[in-house]
Amino acid sequence: MRTQVAIIGAGPAGLLLSHLLARAGIDSVVLERSSRDHVERRIRAGVLEHGTVALLRRLGLADRLDQEGMPHHGVELLFDGQGHRLDLTALAGRQITIYGQHELVKDLIRARFDTGAPLLFEAPVQQVVDPTGDQPVVHFQHEGRTHELRADVVAGCDGFHGVSRATIPSSILSVHRHDYPYAWLGVLAQAPPSAEELIYAYHQRGFALHSMRNPELTRLYLQVPPGTESADWPAERVWAELSTRLARDDPGWSLTRGPIVEQSVVDLRSVVAEPMRYGRLFLAGDAAHIVPATGAKGLNLAVADVLNLAAGLTRWYADGSETLLDAYSATCLERVWRVQHFSWWMTSMLHREPDQDPFTTGLQLSQLRYLTRSTAAATSFAENYAGLPLTSGGDDDLA
Amino acid sequence: MRTQVAIIGAGPAGLLLSHLLARAGIDSVVLERSSRDHVERRIRAGVLEHGTVALLRRLGLADRLDQEGMPHHGVELLFDGQGHRLDLTALAGRQITIYGQHELVKDLIRARFDTGAPLLFEAPVQQVVDPTGDQPVVHFQHEGRTHELRADVVAGCDGFHGVSRATIPSSILSVHRHDYPYAWLGVLAQAPPSAEELIYAYHQRGFALHSMRNPELTRLYLQVPPGTESADWPAERVWAELSTRLARDDPGWSLTRGPIVEQSVVDLRSVVAEPMRYGRLFLAGDAAHIVPATGAKGLNLAVADVLNLAAGLTRWYADGSETLLDAYSATCLERVWRVQHFSWWMTSMLHREPDQDPFTTGLQLSQLRYLTRSTAAATSFAENYAGLPLTSGGDDDLA
Repeated sequence: MRTQVAIIGAGPAGLLLSHLLARAGIDSVVLERSSRDHVERRIRAGVLEHGTVALLRRLGLADRLDQEGMPHHGVELLFDGQGHRLDLTALAGRQITIYGQHELVKDLIRARFDTGAPLLFEAPVQQVVDPTGDQPVVHFQHEGRTHELRADVVAGCDGFHGVSRATIPSSILSVHRHDYPYAWLGVLAQAPPSAEELIYAYHQRGFALHSMRNPELTRLYLQVPPGTESADWPAERVWAELSTRLARDDPGWSLTRGPIVEQSVVDLRSVVAEPMRYGRLFLAGDAAHIVPATGAKGLNLAVADVLNLAAGLTRWYADGSETLLDAYSATCLERVWRVQHFSWWMTSMLHREPDQDPFTTGLQLSQLRYLTRSTAAATSFAENYAGLPLTSGGDDDLA
Repeated sequence: MRTQVAIIGAGPAGLLLSHLLARAGIDSVVLERSSRDHVERRIRAGVLEHGTVALLRRLGLADRLDQEGMPHHGVELLFDGQGHRLDLTALAGRQITIYGQHELVKDLIRARFDTGAPLLFEAPVQQVVDPTGDQPVVHFQHEGRTHELRADVVAGCDGFHGVSRATIPSSILSVHRHDYPYAWLGVLAQAPPSAEELIYAYHQRGFALHSMRNPELTRLYLQVPPGTESADWPAERVWAELSTRLARDDPGWSLTRGPIVEQSVVDLRSVVAEPMRYGRLFLAGDAAHIVPATGAKGLNLAVADVLNLAAGLTRWYADGSETLLDAYSATCLERVWRVQHFSWWMTSMLHREPDQDPFTTGLQLSQLRYLTRSTAAATSFAENYAGLPLTSGGDDDLA
């Protein structure tokens, strides 16, 4: 087999890259280790930045997103029993859209199949051979046989535990990580959301988040200690704790309960791998970096990565110039660090450390109060949360 | 002896309070343990916030400040060899004024003596008796004898190591502190400043600050390990290190050297004591809180404290209402925590921890870059640095 760009991984990064390349007339093959069903049911993030939505529209991939996605113009910070709305649109001229990552993945898969371009599920990659040569080869299994895919370029979009990053020698790759002393217990409940917008709650018992997937599904999170077993949290305990942490002085408000249909514990961590290029192998999305979920940035950061990668490859195929490809890692990393900083900042402000000292609590509360009172501080939050432009040319720069 | 308000300490807090009270027709006695000469030579902060200067003008205490103070409309952040100016006036509509704290103290002392109101030097306080009663008594020594000063109220403006805070039982007082793993080596040099404005430098060898006192005196600081002996830093070493950390790509710039006339090491720490009131004893300034010097906030925070205290006492003497006095501690603490957060934030962004991990460095650099590129972030910095309004009524609210 032969293609121009071998894409490892059919998450949002790999799939979107395949569409960006197709638009520029560049052939690709997408290889995904899991089944289509698994990928389409995997519950992940659900907040799309302003620029992500604009890009999907430009690509003609937003039909269902525009029908079913829930545009939000604000988010709420809840502390000391009081909610404080931050109006993203008024502050930053940008909004967010609530749309489950797996819904977006479904859309991208269907659109890919509609074009007839190759996308293989249950096709795990074993290794990437000769990534620094002119014709790297991807070895993968499919339907009981081993295959070789020759390509000009390999795009590693296979997540944090994928083979792509592991291909880069440790003498070349630096991995910076920060672990947080807490995790998130996430539940998906068959209940209408209890508020129209997201609620980020700071509470002495720990952080809580009220989010949603659609008008019938509420997504809720609780800060829990690392190593927490989901089984130790039966539904009654989950709802009681959520009700406590999301409580507010307003007597008219209550948390709507419903059957919990999904429940899991995820660690919070920050990881940055650099460089994001090794010869003809380019990393994108979670393969190169992980952000704690607080800032809702993981998917959007992957989008920015592949937008830059597609721009570089388009230029290279067009006129042979490697300028953008050579800049790929540094260009992406600048946004990666911005998003890492924002995610770390928001995480640190909203969570309680084990045995937290009162000085830290004082700083957190002062930060929260300032954020709700200073237009400048609120604007800084809003422009990061709704998303800074995806490229230096703006959201709509498709090169 | 008898007075209305006994003021312990003739630093900026105590002296300014005496003027604010005199303006309202309230008598006070100021007791200072050190000599006038010592107090007037004590090198301390040198950055006055916009609101501090406005207040001093309103009080008629800014004649020399207006002649000799140096208004600055911006400050510079220096990192990666590049300077980035933040225009305080354009961003926040406010500026700072460079004027040594000891110069301000001289002005306040002279003005106090001009009125003939009592201000005693070399008058150390031994104890405050019955601070929760109606007539607290301050025992102090002066000219070889012990004296008793009866007052309605005692204002503890005697700094971090003074007797005032120690008077409050530990069962009542909470003290929150945060120590930083670095200190500052400060030097005063007889050399014209090398730049017109302050330069805050982030460097892999550690933080450095270029400041000034007047057109002939440069004030410079270097981050050093805690416990550093000033004697280990002869002038040549100080200048070499300053030149390295303040270096920039611009070949036309160099650091002007001159004789070092003062040199010392100060620890960086954050301390908040609460409540700031115990019966008829009110704490103000460093007696209640310490901020790391990075944000240049210590003196300005003391000014906000005594402005609130004077407003409360004025109201109380006018109509017997304790409303403002009862709110004193909470009102001050809200600003104290805001300033603590800003000072901690600026300190953490600009200093290098021992064995700092690359993730932290990445966050710092991303924060610095963002600050120089986002109008919202720069405005947030500027409004804190130039100073948020001194009271909820604004800078000019003298009650």
